[in-house]
Amino acid sequence: MIQEPRELTALAGSWRGQGQKIALVPTMGSFHAGHLALMHQARQCADQVVVSLFVNPIQFGSGEDLAAYPRDLQRDMELAAGEGVDVLYAPTTSSMYPAGFQTTVRVAELGRGLCGASRPGHFDGVCTVVMKLFSQTQAHLAVFGEKDFQQLAVIRRMVRDLDLAVDIVAHPTVREASGLAMSSRNSYLQDDEREQALCLYRAILFARQKVKGATQPLSAEVLRREIEGNIGQVPGCAVEYVEIVDPDSLERCETVQVNSRLIMAVKIHDRVRLIDNARLFEL
Amino acid sequence: MIQEPRELTALAGSWRGQGQKIALVPTMGSFHAGHLALMHQARQCADQVVVSLFVNPIQFGSGEDLAAYPRDLQRDMELAAGEGVDVLYAPTTSSMYPAGFQTTVRVAELGRGLCGASRPGHFDGVCTVVMKLFSQTQAHLAVFGEKDFQQLAVIRRMVRDLDLAVDIVAHPTVREASGLAMSSRNSYLQDDEREQALCLYRAILFARQKVKGATQPLSAEVLRREIEGNIGQVPGCAVEYVEIVDPDSLERCETVQVNSRLIMAVKIHDRVRLIDNARLFEL
Repeated sequence: MIQEPRELTALAGSWRGQGQKIALVPTMGSFHAGHLALMHQARQCADQVVVSLFVNPIQFGSGEDLAAYPRDLQRDMELAAGEGVDVLYAPTTSSMYPAGFQTTVRVAELGRGLCGASRPGHFDGVCTVVMKLFSQTQAHLAVFGEKDFQQLAVIRRMVRDLDLAVDIVAHPTVREASGLAMSSRNSYLQDDEREQALCLYRAILFARQKVKGATQPLSAEVLRREIEGNIGQVPGCAVEYVEIVDPDSLERCETVQVNSRLIMAVKIHDRVRLIDNARLFEL
Repeated sequence: MIQEPRELTALAGSWRGQGQKIALVPTMGSFHAGHLALMHQARQCADQVVVSLFVNPIQFGSGEDLAAYPRDLQRDMELAAGEGVDVLYAPTTSSMYPAGFQTTVRVAELGRGLCGASRPGHFDGVCTVVMKLFSQTQAHLAVFGEKDFQQLAVIRRMVRDLDLAVDIVAHPTVREASGLAMSSRNSYLQDDEREQALCLYRAILFARQKVKGATQPLSAEVLRREIEGNIGQVPGCAVEYVEIVDPDSLERCETVQVNSRLIMAVKIHDRVRLIDNARLFEL
């Protein structure tokens, strides 16, 4: 494990000097099968795999779960080693944001709606830390999960807009046998809440069924409201948003298109915030 | 000359592959002896010297001189060639900011006061374009003039905060024989206004004289007001700001310190905005 940004950057520089290809998997730790799949994918693509583990304070709002966010460094180290990760990089907050730090990278429109609406500043924090991690690791490519679909769109936009020489690789969402999307925040759920949390996956199945059975273009707004209604009927589940969007612009679709994405956030018992998303036409 | 970002990036990649050192001199063109000095310095430090020439629209506010900004590409190409510049890089606005562009790099506190106060968003535009130029050119180092002292401080901060692997080299302000700091905007001045514009350089000489003659710590506020008064007495000159600041934080000094910087903006006949700055203790 490396903690010092300068130590990592020196190592990355020596890898670069040897012509080695570097992959980054940015994480906040508390690894589950979703993280391990990202590491596995990175391992296929690069000579050196760096997994960053940093619970990034600037992407949490006040009143969010920064302090409660699950942490288990010892277990994470073992799991990363099991995936053949070369370096687990776990910098301290003060080394990432020393006194005087004041720079922000912002992707304006893409970061504003959906999760950005209820988490103002969240994607600024994400972009800023990811930009730093790209610099520190000198990565040729970085692997992100589709689970955080808006984050993926925002990062792709940042890379394109700032001409960064990093390939962004997307990995499909990994799900539990029940269909619940893997998330470190699932650890907040009690048993009955895990059942309620399935409303997200059921919404995806429902929407896909509708799309498959449709004989003419489906109104995205009608489908959206049906899904909202379905989730609203599950006890303890409150919709934060349900949208059917273009996967690049994240703008609402009029009708469901071949690449349209269903994207949702719900709160379980006003306590655990879960997100999920899926393409509606299956490939 | 190269206009296409992709062409430049491919070339820079091949230089990197050959282990060559790349220097960038970011400019808005209309070259004068100040620019040529930056190119000369870059030439000393690197195998490949790229001079970018881009009148960056996002660093101009509405009502500023974007359209009027002097342009003379043919002359600039000849002058750059005379300094041994390898590539003059003059991208188009649409290639730098294609449809959908929406990312901003912001250095908060350092970009807010001084010139940032009267030019809101200016340094966001500067940071964003410089970040792009760093990526596109894959520069190992970049040379900036001290003439734009706040810009230099902002860029240094951005590089440090985002862990960018670019060395920032500062070059002293180049002055005409009269003492007037070289600036592309001097071309806006009529003959009598060039005389009035010397109020800036005279303020530097005045302040240095005061500092040299002082037998005890000088109050920065007293000196600041004296300078403001002196400039205010010159017909046609209006002070936008006069400050004596720490060179890194750009915060006001209580007393004049060994590294304190006098930094000023004035408007000549409410039409031409000029800036200047200097260290008060001469080295």
